[in-house]
Amino acid sequence: MRASVLRDGHMVYRDDLPEPVPGPGQVLVAVRSCGICGSDLHFAAHGAQVLTMSAQAAGGSRGSGGIDVDLNRDVFMGHEFSAEVVEAGPDTETYSPGTLVTSIPLVLSAKGAEPIVYSNSTLGGYAERMLLSAPLLMPIPNGLDPKHAALTEPMAVGLHAVNKSHIAPGETALVIGCGPIGIAIIAALRLRGVESIVASDFSPKRRELATAMGAHQVLDPVLGSPFDSVKAAVVFEAVGVPGIIDDILRRARRGARLIVAGVCMEPDAVHPFFGTAKEISIQFVLAYTPEEFAESLRALADGEIDVAPMITGEVGLDGVGAAFDDLADPERHCKILVTP
Amino acid sequence: MRASVLRDGHMVYRDDLPEPVPGPGQVLVAVRSCGICGSDLHFAAHGAQVLTMSAQAAGGSRGSGGIDVDLNRDVFMGHEFSAEVVEAGPDTETYSPGTLVTSIPLVLSAKGAEPIVYSNSTLGGYAERMLLSAPLLMPIPNGLDPKHAALTEPMAVGLHAVNKSHIAPGETALVIGCGPIGIAIIAALRLRGVESIVASDFSPKRRELATAMGAHQVLDPVLGSPFDSVKAAVVFEAVGVPGIIDDILRRARRGARLIVAGVCMEPDAVHPFFGTAKEISIQFVLAYTPEEFAESLRALADGEIDVAPMITGEVGLDGVGAAFDDLADPERHCKILVTP
Repeated sequence: MRASVLRDGHMVYRDDLPEPVPGPGQVLVAVRSCGICGSDLHFAAHGAQVLTMSAQAAGGSRGSGGIDVDLNRDVFMGHEFSAEVVEAGPDTETYSPGTLVTSIPLVLSAKGAEPIVYSNSTLGGYAERMLLSAPLLMPIPNGLDPKHAALTEPMAVGLHAVNKSHIAPGETALVIGCGPIGIAIIAALRLRGVESIVASDFSPKRRELATAMGAHQVLDPVLGSPFDSVKAAVVFEAVGVPGIIDDILRRARRGARLIVAGVCMEPDAVHPFFGTAKEISIQFVLAYTPEEFAESLRALADGEIDVAPMITGEVGLDGVGAAFDDLADPERHCKILVTP
Repeated sequence: MRASVLRDGHMVYRDDLPEPVPGPGQVLVAVRSCGICGSDLHFAAHGAQVLTMSAQAAGGSRGSGGIDVDLNRDVFMGHEFSAEVVEAGPDTETYSPGTLVTSIPLVLSAKGAEPIVYSNSTLGGYAERMLLSAPLLMPIPNGLDPKHAALTEPMAVGLHAVNKSHIAPGETALVIGCGPIGIAIIAALRLRGVESIVASDFSPKRRELATAMGAHQVLDPVLGSPFDSVKAAVVFEAVGVPGIIDDILRRARRGARLIVAGVCMEPDAVHPFFGTAKEISIQFVLAYTPEEFAESLRALADGEIDVAPMITGEVGLDGVGAAFDDLADPERHCKILVTP
C-alpha cells in the first residue's frame, strides 16, 4: 500500500506498506482527502522537542504519559481526513462500502484508544487506506465535497477555541494570526454570530482570506499594533511564538480574555504584573470535543462555513514532502490537501 | 497632625502635618486601626519599579495613566483602615461623630476619584486623621472590633479571588502561599462552603494559621510538591515570585484553573505548551468590587470570618518603620496593625 511517512525529519513516499486489516469494531477506509496541519510541519522539524515537552506536560519523563513514538522509525501522520468505507472488521456493522465518512482522529483497538496523530504503528491520513473505528464514523451529509469534509477537524479546533472564550455576539474579537487556526477561529466566530471580528496578519494574502472567511476588519501589524485601534474584549492568539503573550498582556484592555490557540513549545518571557493590573484571563485551548467536531461537520455540510477559499493546493502521496516545504510561504498557501 | 510617611524607602514618623480639612462630600475621620499590607512593603522597597510597571500596564510611559506619585517627596500610604467619624465637610450629611466606619480606599474630590494607596497629597491610614467620602462610608455593624474591621480590605481581596475562580463547593482548592492574601483566600473559600481546602507554605507558623483560618489540610513544600498529593481543580497562587506560574502549569492537572493573586513585578519565564497540553486557564485578579468589600465586612461582623488569629502585632505611628522590617519574618508575623 502507498503512504507518505516521516523519516529523519522529511516526508518520504513508500509503496511497500502492508495492507491494513480491520480488527473487531474497526473499518477499513480509503482516504479521499487529508489536510496538512501546521502541527505536522512542526513535528517533522522538531519531533524530539514535541515528545519531550509532551512528556513533561504529562508529568513524567519521555515515554511515561506523553506521546509514545520512536523517531528512529517511520512515523505515520495525517489527522484531517475524509474517507470512503471499504470493509468492516469481524463482527462489525457499519455503513455500506462507498459511503463517505470522517471521524475524530482516534482509533479504538485492543490496546485502548490510539490517537491518529504521530505513530509508528497507527496509520494516518497520509496513506491510501487506514483503519477507523465503527462507532466513531460520521457519514458526510448533504453531498458535501469530501475535500471540504477533510477540514472538519481544523474547523472544530476553531470552534472549540471560540466556545471556550464564551464570547457574546456583541463583543469585539481580535484574531492575531490568520494561518489555518486563525482562519478557523474567524469562521467559528461568524458561525456564533459575533458582529465585530478583527483579524491581524503580516501577509496580504492571509488578510484577504480572513475577509473571505468572515472577518469584518483586517489589520496589518506592520502599520501599528492592532491594539492601537481595537479595544477587543476577547483576543485569540493563533501564532504560537515567544513574545506574543506578553505583548497581548501589555496592550490588551482591562478585563480582556485571551484565548491561546497558538502552540508555543519554547520557553516564553511574560510580565505577570500586566495581567494583574488589568485582571486579564488566559485560556489555553487544545483540540475539541466530539460534539464540536460533529457541529463543525454539520456547519460545513449546511453551507454555514465554506472552506473552499482555504484550500490553496492539492498533491498526491508522492508530493507531501514538497508540500511541507511549500507551506512555509503564507503568500502561497493556507491549506494543502493530500489526495491519495 | 501625626502620621508615618514613606521617605527615601523608609517609613518616617512626622508630627508636623497640617490638619486635613474635609471638602464638600467629605468626612474627617480619626483612624482607629490600619493594617500594614505587603504591597506597602513592596512599594517602600521598589517604588520606582511599581510606578514604571503600572504606567506600562496602563499603556503609556510613567505619569500617563499609571500612579501619579513623586518618590522624591513624602508618600502617604495605608489602605486597610477603620476609623471614627469626627466631622463632615460643608453641605455634607453623614453619621454622627464617634460612629465607627470603614470604606473602600477611595476618596472623591473635585479632582475626581483618588485611590487611597500611594499619594503625595491624599492621606492614608498611617495617620492620626484622614478624609473619606460620605457616600462610601460603611458603618461597622454588630459591635465588631475596629481592629478586626480594618482587615475588611484584605479579606475582600481574598473573597474577590475566590469569586473570580467560580469554584464549586465540591471542588478541591489548593492555596499556594499563606501570607495575608493566601489566608484571606482560605477564609473566603471556607465562607463559600468549599469542602476541600489545601494550603501550602514553607513556614510552620503560617501553616498553623492556615489551619486556624479554615484549611482542611496543610502541606510543607520542602517535603515534596503539593501537586504530588493534591489534584486540585482550582489553584490559588498567592506568592508572586518568578517561576511559580510555570511550576503550576507544569504540575497542575488537566483543565485546572489557576487564579494568580500574587503580585509579581519581575519578568517571568513560562512554558505556554504546558498550559496548552492541559487546557489550563489563568485568571489574574486584583482588588475587589464595592459589593465584595461590603460582604467581607458583613462576614466579619457576623462572625463567619474571625481575623483574630491573623493579627500578630500592633504598633503606634512611630513604630511603623520597625514593623515594616519585622514583617519580613513569616515565623513572627502575618498582619501588624497600626493604631495611631
